[in-house]
Amino acid sequence: MVVKKLSDIGERAAIRRIEGILTKEKNTSGIGDDCATIDLGNEYLLVTTDMISQRTHIPKQMTPYQMGWFLVAINLSDVAAKGGIPLGVVCSFGLPKTTSEVFLTDLTRGADACAVTFGTTIVGGDTKETADITLCGTAFGRVKKTEFMARTGTRLGDIVAVTGTLGKASVGYYALQQKHPAKKLTHGLLEPAPRLREGRLLAQLRCVSSSMDISDGLSSSLYQLQELNGVGFEIKKNTLPLDPGFSVLSTTRTKIDASALALHFGGDYELLVTMSPDMFETAQKTLQKQGCKLTAIGSVTKKRDIILVDGGKKTTLANKGYEHFKKHFFP
Amino acid sequence: MVVKKLSDIGERAAIRRIEGILTKEKNTSGIGDDCATIDLGNEYLLVTTDMISQRTHIPKQMTPYQMGWFLVAINLSDVAAKGGIPLGVVCSFGLPKTTSEVFLTDLTRGADACAVTFGTTIVGGDTKETADITLCGTAFGRVKKTEFMARTGTRLGDIVAVTGTLGKASVGYYALQQKHPAKKLTHGLLEPAPRLREGRLLAQLRCVSSSMDISDGLSSSLYQLQELNGVGFEIKKNTLPLDPGFSVLSTTRTKIDASALALHFGGDYELLVTMSPDMFETAQKTLQKQGCKLTAIGSVTKKRDIILVDGGKKTTLANKGYEHFKKHFFP
Repeated sequence: MVVKKLSDIGERAAIRRIEGILTKEKNTSGIGDDCATIDLGNEYLLVTTDMISQRTHIPKQMTPYQMGWFLVAINLSDVAAKGGIPLGVVCSFGLPKTTSEVFLTDLTRGADACAVTFGTTIVGGDTKETADITLCGTAFGRVKKTEFMARTGTRLGDIVAVTGTLGKASVGYYALQQKHPAKKLTHGLLEPAPRLREGRLLAQLRCVSSSMDISDGLSSSLYQLQELNGVGFEIKKNTLPLDPGFSVLSTTRTKIDASALALHFGGDYELLVTMSPDMFETAQKTLQKQGCKLTAIGSVTKKRDIILVDGGKKTTLANKGYEHFKKHFFP
Repeated sequence: MVVKKLSDIGERAAIRRIEGILTKEKNTSGIGDDCATIDLGNEYLLVTTDMISQRTHIPKQMTPYQMGWFLVAINLSDVAAKGGIPLGVVCSFGLPKTTSEVFLTDLTRGADACAVTFGTTIVGGDTKETADITLCGTAFGRVKKTEFMARTGTRLGDIVAVTGTLGKASVGYYALQQKHPAKKLTHGLLEPAPRLREGRLLAQLRCVSSSMDISDGLSSSLYQLQELNGVGFEIKKNTLPLDPGFSVLSTTRTKIDASALALHFGGDYELLVTMSPDMFETAQKTLQKQGCKLTAIGSVTKKRDIILVDGGKKTTLANKGYEHFKKHFFP
């Protein structure tokens, strides 16, 4: 008998196995969206949790402050993707007993700074001894039911759009590799900004038919959205809002394919949304007024595949992404 | 310069350091109670998080099913201590990549079973690769502000009481050591029952002046309550509701001091409450009618110390408890 290991089945299959076991209650959503929702009457309570560990998620160049920031940011990103107003974050720090007190205080400062920067606070937590650094955050928020942005709801003919720029995390990764002096280049990777403002603006406009964050990578997220909604996408390669950081990286030592990294690298905490074409301009302008960016990158199609349009050339988009247990970017 | 390690300062000092750093918001409580509270108008949203790891919390005899149960139970215990109605639990599973799929499904089944047994569900989670098994749960609940049972509020002359029986976790520990055939003896240690029903009944009676769970140990919890409230306690040793499991353990090979274990061992997920003497009988009877147990073990005194009364002998109660980073019960 072959005993299957988690490394054989991968994270998504593991989550499907979990989903098959869990008891569902009427007033809660199942797992499989960025946040769980609990019915509070006119509102949903949003809850999301993310764990990061030294082995898979924490590049060696990441400072303790950045680890704290990162932990909070990735959880708030899930609240942002649902149009939520954050209510608070709890953090559990699993640390080896040889960890210094300064490490703990820097970690806490980073977590606190991220929460406060995005309008919320750390309301509680836990510290425990673990073999490796293992950090777990849980963010919760609230959103009017009428403003909630689910992963499901994509409609034929909708525009596909993303907030911000794409490829920031990969820019950070290569900037570290190249020991680039501009520390700011690494912020997309090490100190990402959750798109809470963008999420709220889109939610208030009630223009979005489906929404998720693209932390797993744009291509991977598109495939998840496609599968959930039974539609297809046509993505125009030349419309991808590539991060300006790409232009600063050295291309002499490393071959850098910005579009491929923007599509597949993952780690960009932007929102991927779909909306009716007649709402797009209003949405874009509303975000722009607040210093936020929204870019149309394609459209929703009937045929259940994802096509990348590159000038006159159409190819099926590769489904690559950051999936845990199977591989890591930071070995 | 001496760099202080977490192993030098211990968990409680670590938490105090964290508390000193975190930004506080008006509509939330600080850390330092069993749950964080978020103001939702007439109610509080309760949030609590607990992490357990192979190295410190998971005895080697604990099955994956029990790990899942335990993780959910210890979080729900914090909701119980505040008088809350649970709304849901999220679980993050940090697992080595060589973990079998069966382990994951058993873990999930245990978590689900505990949640469902106590009237709630697992609404979401995360799975990540870690060096050691590291599990993190977050439970949330709701409670009317008028029914919320804080850690603070102890009044002079109040009765000190506990739910259930004391020493169950230590009974389980010695039952495992003695390889006792009665599996049920280990349940207090490996499959604890959060006192949600007791918590709700006490909350609805509005009889409690302060409340916390005693997972850290009764003596340690009394010292925490004493420090927070600036009072003292007199605890009568012969009133401690010792777990009946003690009588089944062999005392030939191991010297077992049931009262000492009930006071100091920790791991009992019972509630420690204080209340006015004229409310106690009603509270006890109300719980009894629902098959729940409440025992008076002492009273609140003016002098800021904790006295253990053993017949005519009065001694200062030792402040021992399960504190992480510094030591473990399960090396």
